[in-house]
Amino acid sequence: MAEMMARRIEELQTPAFVVDLPKVQNNAAAMIERFRNTGVRLRPHMKTHKTVECADIMTGGSRRCIVVSTLAEAFFYAEHGFDDILYAYPLPVDKLARCAELAQRLALFHVLVDSVAALQELRNTPLTGGKLWSVWLKLDCENKRAGVPHDDPAALDLAKAISESPGVELTGVYAHCGNSYDCTGLEEIHAVAQATTTATLRFMDKLKAAGISCPVSSIGSTPSCSHPVTDMALLSEVHPGNYVFYDVQQSLIGSCRLEDVAVRVLTRVIGHYPHRNQLLVDCGWTGLSLHSLGRLDTGYAVIDGHPELRLIGMTQEHGRIEPVSGQLEFEKFPLGSMLAIIPYHSCATAAMHPVYFVHSNGEIEATWKPTRGW
Amino acid sequence: MAEMMARRIEELQTPAFVVDLPKVQNNAAAMIERFRNTGVRLRPHMKTHKTVECADIMTGGSRRCIVVSTLAEAFFYAEHGFDDILYAYPLPVDKLARCAELAQRLALFHVLVDSVAALQELRNTPLTGGKLWSVWLKLDCENKRAGVPHDDPAALDLAKAISESPGVELTGVYAHCGNSYDCTGLEEIHAVAQATTTATLRFMDKLKAAGISCPVSSIGSTPSCSHPVTDMALLSEVHPGNYVFYDVQQSLIGSCRLEDVAVRVLTRVIGHYPHRNQLLVDCGWTGLSLHSLGRLDTGYAVIDGHPELRLIGMTQEHGRIEPVSGQLEFEKFPLGSMLAIIPYHSCATAAMHPVYFVHSNGEIEATWKPTRGW
Repeated sequence: MAEMMARRIEELQTPAFVVDLPKVQNNAAAMIERFRNTGVRLRPHMKTHKTVECADIMTGGSRRCIVVSTLAEAFFYAEHGFDDILYAYPLPVDKLARCAELAQRLALFHVLVDSVAALQELRNTPLTGGKLWSVWLKLDCENKRAGVPHDDPAALDLAKAISESPGVELTGVYAHCGNSYDCTGLEEIHAVAQATTTATLRFMDKLKAAGISCPVSSIGSTPSCSHPVTDMALLSEVHPGNYVFYDVQQSLIGSCRLEDVAVRVLTRVIGHYPHRNQLLVDCGWTGLSLHSLGRLDTGYAVIDGHPELRLIGMTQEHGRIEPVSGQLEFEKFPLGSMLAIIPYHSCATAAMHPVYFVHSNGEIEATWKPTRGW
Repeated sequence: MAEMMARRIEELQTPAFVVDLPKVQNNAAAMIERFRNTGVRLRPHMKTHKTVECADIMTGGSRRCIVVSTLAEAFFYAEHGFDDILYAYPLPVDKLARCAELAQRLALFHVLVDSVAALQELRNTPLTGGKLWSVWLKLDCENKRAGVPHDDPAALDLAKAISESPGVELTGVYAHCGNSYDCTGLEEIHAVAQATTTATLRFMDKLKAAGISCPVSSIGSTPSCSHPVTDMALLSEVHPGNYVFYDVQQSLIGSCRLEDVAVRVLTRVIGHYPHRNQLLVDCGWTGLSLHSLGRLDTGYAVIDGHPELRLIGMTQEHGRIEPVSGQLEFEKFPLGSMLAIIPYHSCATAAMHPVYFVHSNGEIEATWKPTRGW
């Protein structure tokens, strides 16, 4: 394939998902540094990129202490020598046998539980060889997705039931402050980070008071971990993920600057339509996803270096670009010329690409291949 | 993998993309039948499914006369013995060498052009061995995406330039009536089908009057080809694609009945949250895409057999379901129970899945693996 011969990103066939390696390294190093001297362990989430190479960067090469969102990721990383893997997902009963396989195979494989019914499934499926299921209780600290509400007495009841169940041990409490995605600016991010931390620590206190042993408390989201509050030092772990790439959404939330965003979709101009003041580019939703729902001032994404352009719509393989105002200067964008799209949601854009082209200053250094599926 | 052992779709791990084979066969047969005695050739589009098996069904096993949206598809089908492949995409100059490779290798490989600049690229890259570039002119019949506007004198000028260029021949005129996706009901579909047909045929008349030879005229979209107007019999070809699966969108347009939709995403309940009247299921946007933008009365999709449920939101691996009104009857949806989501846009949903599970009445008969990338 022609991609194999490309030495610079300008030579890539488009659409192409490109990863700026120094930015990835900086984003990863900043997160490691941020928590290094706090006594809080960083357990990076793999869901954004799902590659071995980026996992190595995020774990500082340790290949230990990660979070995954699918069992496909868990197996992929296990096969590449990773361990201490938390499958941070409400335990799916149809995948229990595969979970057991990983639990037997790895030194540390953790599952997440937020119901008595799921706990009962674990009790019905004991591990062998003296192994225990390592269970984390999912706490909902106002994110309103999965988890037992932190102030619901059922949370403590479930923790007690886990700790008292044969074949099972309560390892941790896990809260995802996904509600930080509704924030704009540092003050709002801090408020969510504080509220989640406080609720989690209070719950840990309740466990202690009830005599329930649970060594680990973990919260995380890219906004809160990019701008942690002091009290987060009282937690055992944090588990952000998106920060390694960041994206337009994170820059709008205030997690990062737009220049920290490490990924682009390269696209080329494939059509000039002056009669309707539009360019056509070769990136549709198969190359970018529809994740901003078109609500940005610049449409579905930001076009790097071109604040005057707006990506107003996409079909499967076509993107339509208009000027934000006035007449498009078509001569600046000849057929075949390249534009770099900064994704609104890098997790969603990465999920559309079977290969990532990894570069330093435009020089292609590697290709990374993500795992997919479930 | 556990999937390999599943004999019925109820045994599949979720999320899983399942294809109802009899429905696919019916949809394909109906389209073949619809145009069989009209003298209009059916050139089915592969972009929805991108599999060999479904292409065989759509071509009646001929492996001839297809349309693709990416060069990855073109190479994939060429490698599986398909021929007469139209790459219906504004000629991308970065992929010219790969186009030339296919043009040399296949008996019939067609490219699409809508600008003098693209034509010039073809002239600069002559084929060898006496081969000519087979070029189709892309006409924009009010769809407003790619193509030269049908009533713009530039369209005739370009046709003339193609026909007079050395190394190049004008094979066809191609119009995609994607504006039929804005229709609701038969009358509106017919109006777009008629307008596109009339504009295309008028352009063919202009070519004839100007002494420009061009054997083929082709229009298409799933709505217009599911409900063709009489004048479409005057065209040489039609090129719909989505109809083989159909989807909620097509049922709302009026292309099909909801019961004709051949695909589902199977998902399982992974959480009960009575305090906010919600279920959580294991299908997020990695399993479905965000393509309806949540605008349906039932949210992002339709849940088969459950008009009382609404898929109100998705994150990467989670879907949140609420009742359309009133209190959710949680006891009807125990943890682990399965729901079947009918996608809003099957092209977009299929694009998220590395494997399709193909069944007849729930009995799994095959797995199909699509090609991806560009």
